[in-house]
Amino acid sequence: MSKSLAAGRRIFEGIEALAEISENPDNLTRRSLTIEHKRANTLVGDWMAAAGMQVRTDAIGNIIGRYPGQTDGPALLLGSHLDTVRDGGRYDGMLGVLVPLACVEALHAADEKLSFPIEIVGFCDEEGVRFPSTLLGSRAIAGTLPEQTLRETDDDGISIADALRDFGQAPTALDSARRESSDFLGFVELHIEQGPVLEREQLPVGLVSAIASAARYRAVVSGKASHAGTVPMEMRQDALCAAAECILAIEAIATALPDTVATVGQITALPGAGNVIPGSVEFLIDIRAPTDQDLAVAEQNLHNELTRIAAERKLTIAPDRYYAASGVSCDSALSAQLRNAIQNCGHRVVELPSGAGHDAMALAAITPIAMLFVRCKEGLSHHPDESITLEDADAAAQVMLRFLRDFNPNARAIQST
Amino acid sequence: MSKSLAAGRRIFEGIEALAEISENPDNLTRRSLTIEHKRANTLVGDWMAAAGMQVRTDAIGNIIGRYPGQTDGPALLLGSHLDTVRDGGRYDGMLGVLVPLACVEALHAADEKLSFPIEIVGFCDEEGVRFPSTLLGSRAIAGTLPEQTLRETDDDGISIADALRDFGQAPTALDSARRESSDFLGFVELHIEQGPVLEREQLPVGLVSAIASAARYRAVVSGKASHAGTVPMEMRQDALCAAAECILAIEAIATALPDTVATVGQITALPGAGNVIPGSVEFLIDIRAPTDQDLAVAEQNLHNELTRIAAERKLTIAPDRYYAASGVSCDSALSAQLRNAIQNCGHRVVELPSGAGHDAMALAAITPIAMLFVRCKEGLSHHPDESITLEDADAAAQVMLRFLRDFNPNARAIQST
Repeated sequence: MSKSLAAGRRIFEGIEALAEISENPDNLTRRSLTIEHKRANTLVGDWMAAAGMQVRTDAIGNIIGRYPGQTDGPALLLGSHLDTVRDGGRYDGMLGVLVPLACVEALHAADEKLSFPIEIVGFCDEEGVRFPSTLLGSRAIAGTLPEQTLRETDDDGISIADALRDFGQAPTALDSARRESSDFLGFVELHIEQGPVLEREQLPVGLVSAIASAARYRAVVSGKASHAGTVPMEMRQDALCAAAECILAIEAIATALPDTVATVGQITALPGAGNVIPGSVEFLIDIRAPTDQDLAVAEQNLHNELTRIAAERKLTIAPDRYYAASGVSCDSALSAQLRNAIQNCGHRVVELPSGAGHDAMALAAITPIAMLFVRCKEGLSHHPDESITLEDADAAAQVMLRFLRDFNPNARAIQST
Repeated sequence: MSKSLAAGRRIFEGIEALAEISENPDNLTRRSLTIEHKRANTLVGDWMAAAGMQVRTDAIGNIIGRYPGQTDGPALLLGSHLDTVRDGGRYDGMLGVLVPLACVEALHAADEKLSFPIEIVGFCDEEGVRFPSTLLGSRAIAGTLPEQTLRETDDDGISIADALRDFGQAPTALDSARRESSDFLGFVELHIEQGPVLEREQLPVGLVSAIASAARYRAVVSGKASHAGTVPMEMRQDALCAAAECILAIEAIATALPDTVATVGQITALPGAGNVIPGSVEFLIDIRAPTDQDLAVAEQNLHNELTRIAAERKLTIAPDRYYAASGVSCDSALSAQLRNAIQNCGHRVVELPSGAGHDAMALAAITPIAMLFVRCKEGLSHHPDESITLEDADAAAQVMLRFLRDFNPNARAIQST
């Protein structure tokens, strides 16, 4: 690879080809285990084979290529997912398969073998758009996908087991998709940032520190509905004013804590007439923090503030925690090697947390993980206008190839303090 | 009338009888110019006639009774409306017809004539539930109802003109409903408070200072929708956080100004998903103040705050003033006589503004107005649970009878400073 941007061009060709494979001719929609997903796997498998990889599809529908090392042994695993959301973008997931593939293509073209094997995986399902569960592919590999998940059905009543049969796999062989810790040296996932930080920092790539811990709440404020014209301000129990105070408190809590974000994305005020004081308000809270400990601090602050506001306004605020996901820190030794590669390619290193979930979360159960983010336009993702530049794709490939060539399989994880 | 609560009982009998006349057997719904409205007019007309009044229905469908004085001349006008909202209460409007009627019944029973005639009107439409326009009856009397309003239609396509014909009136005679300033000594409207102030003050009645000026806005906040997990707090343009700040600013503005109220009763955040930062929020603002000048101050403060919040949060907030109504001050001389009557009946006088609109607003165009509020349970109105006590109905009748017997037709309005 060189300043001719050959890797970037190759990656963009792949992106274009995969973007053609859609359930909907008007946009990019490729749900898990559909005929379009099968076509995408076949195409990626052909490219893998052409790059000198041994290719197979595992029992959950992941496409996996293995590029041999100078000796056999545990592999460095790379990759991301090949499914998309409805009317999604063309880089989310796919870029994390195509950049490693471009690297292996370069190694293969130079007839170059590393001291360790490389595996690239195109995961079958990260988005969870078709079936209720998410991360089907990475969880099957990590051995954390319960057998009964295969009974979940899509909107047409087709179960994952049936979809796998149609896909050409034997769902009874789910266990065969499971891999051991000893199979891997680590997992590195490359993904578009889906946020605006690298654009602001004017950097093509960034090092991910952790995949955020997350909690979601449904909060109900119960005040008293009354006539907007006849109740003096000091006699009101306005549920929307209380909710407004909560929203600003939530914003302040997240702003005060490093790398923590909190969002109220949905709100309903009832009865919902312009001339009636709202008696009841429901809103959703989404909090994400770098670690479970950070999240716990944010949640404690949230509870304190909601309690204070309810007491001061003489009404009730009931938060219901309906979702929580533990965060995953990136492995310090693996990340240190990725950091070196970024620096050695001439880029300043910015570390940032990933607020969104990724396949790496699941893989962390069996192997050290690290993640590389690639700058995307205006932080936009899950949208047809999602985009990155060819130059950034090429820069990402340069960093990853450098990382692979310099990779020391014997570097031990350093416990972070 | 006496401590036997005879007037209260008579009023409650009337309330019960009128509550039976509904378009819907399950609740009280009596829209303007319906067959049920006609039946209510007939019943009230019969009661008026039995109380020694000359009864007629005018060209807009108001029922009007006149109780002669010792000499003929301008009349003191009393009354309120006989229409209801859908699934409404039984006191809103009706009480303001039945209390004066109980007073005239008492005068008639004692064969007592005052120095001036009394007219009681049951207005045909105050709520504006059936047709787009409101205050049809009081505006027709004041001469401020435009002829073309008669072309407005209800949900079934029936025009006011057609409804009047079905009602038995000649819509071409609208002008004949119009009355002159010289016809009246003033207009006194009694109404349930529809708010919680008298209940808090533990008083059966209160003196209304003014009918509030009102303005309504639709405000649109335009920020930037983004992923709730990937955009750091300091890079957000969260439209809902901005709206929350506006809601609290609106609450603070009204709280800081005497007798001013402001409410955000409706809010919509888009796209409206728990994991997306809201890019756009629309909300409705309702502001009411005792006078147009007070309202102007509140509105200027509102504009200053919205401008400040938009600038600080680097987004736009566009307020659209889609409704405004001038307030009406109650006449000081007429109110002074009402105040004396309240005091002479042994009640402490509390003055309060009316946040809701009333027929008196329209009558103010041709004659001095005053209003007497009656305590209602928990400030509830426009609801089947709307209620007052028999004792309070009786107390209101005592105050009004005292007012009538003491009324000095020659007292001039004192300019309030």
